[in-house]
Amino acid sequence: MLGVTKSESRFRVRYAETDAMGIVHHANYLVWMEIARTELCKLRGVRYRDFEQATGLSMAVVGVECRYHRAAKYDDEILATAWLKTSHPRMVVFAYEMRNGETGELLASGETKHVLISREGRPARIPPAYYGLFDL
Amino acid sequence: MLGVTKSESRFRVRYAETDAMGIVHHANYLVWMEIARTELCKLRGVRYRDFEQATGLSMAVVGVECRYHRAAKYDDEILATAWLKTSHPRMVVFAYEMRNGETGELLASGETKHVLISREGRPARIPPAYYGLFDL
Amino acid sequence: MLGVTKSESRFRVRYAETDAMGIVHHANYLVWMEIARTELCKLRGVRYRDFEQATGLSMAVVGVECRYHRAAKYDDEILATAWLKTSHPRMVVFAYEMRNGETGELLASGETKHVLISREGRPARIPPAYYGLFDL
Amino acid sequence: MLGVTKSESRFRVRYAETDAMGIVHHANYLVWMEIARTELCKLRGVRYRDFEQATGLSMAVVGVECRYHRAAKYDDEILATAWLKTSHPRMVVFAYEMRNGETGELLASGETKHVLISREGRPARIPPAYYGLFDL
Repeated sequence: MLGVTKSESRFRVRYAETDAMGIVHHANYLVWMEIARTELCKLRGVRYRDFEQATGLSMAVVGVECRYHRAAKYDDEILATAWLKTSHPRMVVFAYEMRNGETGELLASGETKHVLISREGRPARIPPAYYGLFDL
Repeated sequence: MLGVTKSESRFRVRYAETDAMGIVHHANYLVWMEIARTELCKLRGVRYRDFEQATGLSMAVVGVECRYHRAAKYDDEILATAWLKTSHPRMVVFAYEMRNGETGELLASGETKHVLISREGRPARIPPAYYGLFDL
Repeated sequence: MLGVTKSESRFRVRYAETDAMGIVHHANYLVWMEIARTELCKLRGVRYRDFEQATGLSMAVVGVECRYHRAAKYDDEILATAWLKTSHPRMVVFAYEMRNGETGELLASGETKHVLISREGRPARIPPAYYGLFDL
Repeated sequence: MLGVTKSESRFRVRYAETDAMGIVHHANYLVWMEIARTELCKLRGVRYRDFEQATGLSMAVVGVECRYHRAAKYDDEILATAWLKTSHPRMVVFAYEMRNGETGELLASGETKHVLISREGRPARIPPAYYGLFDL
């Protein structure tokens, strides 16, 4: 499955994700990116929680960018897509698109940048056994 | 400070806490109870995070009840109060009231029930050193 | 579809739903109940967001109870079930179970109590056109 | 108060804001930016919720960037600072810093970009009565 380059996750907007403007609060898109990232790793053969347990490492988020194009509403179907943008043994960048799952309209797009850290919070390198996961 | 029997925490409703009904989403009151509970422990002499580190125990939530009386809106001041309702070496119940901090109107009231568990998730007892904290 | 009496929703635990105890934060179960409730209404023929738009009414939560039996972890599959417990033209009670979707173990169970309110926040009655939805 | 150029908000990390890595989940920093932004508007003489009510306009978020420097933990005091970076009658950019309130260490920094929209979601301009608020 290492050939899989894009993940697709479908889910519906939760009432709790909306705000008083009647639309999805913008912070939730970061949570949706995380769903898409989890799915991408899974499709490429590694459950992220197994990665954390097996290596004692985490992929700490050091940067995030999101551009919002259209609002989403309660119960809209969301299609979240993730792919690997760049990778290096110490740093990985994922890119994302969130679309309306029915109309295909682009809702938001963004990126997250991650560094590998140990349980003690020290910088680490991706273990060679996981190079395939990250196209290294 | 063991004599302190009620905590009072004041904070303002965050936009992210509102929902499409224009009011605070009901799940947030559980988070506010947690703020009030943290404050109560602190006023009684123990920071909950120190308790977790020193004892290796957590106070897992096993039950929660909340009754909602009036809605809160974005930027309203909230006054959250917590007190110990009943305690036992294996189980503690806290009670709460959330009021509008300016008018005093009751917004919600509730209870949370906790059991002590070890890091491995096994039932545990409150260590005697913390009996004072829990009126035991 | 009015004959449908239980809804089943399946989804995976999001990383953002976990807390420093390594398990799902208890407030999220209220959000999961909401997912299950939305699904139940849909299976019984009404999208809740259409109900809100068509009637100008909301089903405000006035009470919630949740009992936590076992912890859930990141990426666990959750199976959330909802059913109508009691109903009255002014008040509806839903009941819920949240299970591990793979093992079937019961994670949490609970209830939510709702009253009908108008956009101005005044008590209202379920319109007769929706009696079927609520078994009235 | 229009001379106020920076806001400072202090609050403590909530348990619900942490994740299984034992630190604050990165999406919460966007919520903290919102707290700081609300405070900045207030210090400059306008409660944002009054702005929304008086003008029928909202400041929709169209972009966000956040760089994470150090992790925050449960019950840490956070000092969130916001200031106006650039403004235009149709678009406003705020910048932020989030620091540990006790040590002063920089935790995260970022920006949010907003456009004015009407209740129907159409692009709008800041009304001249609010030019002072936005240094126009």
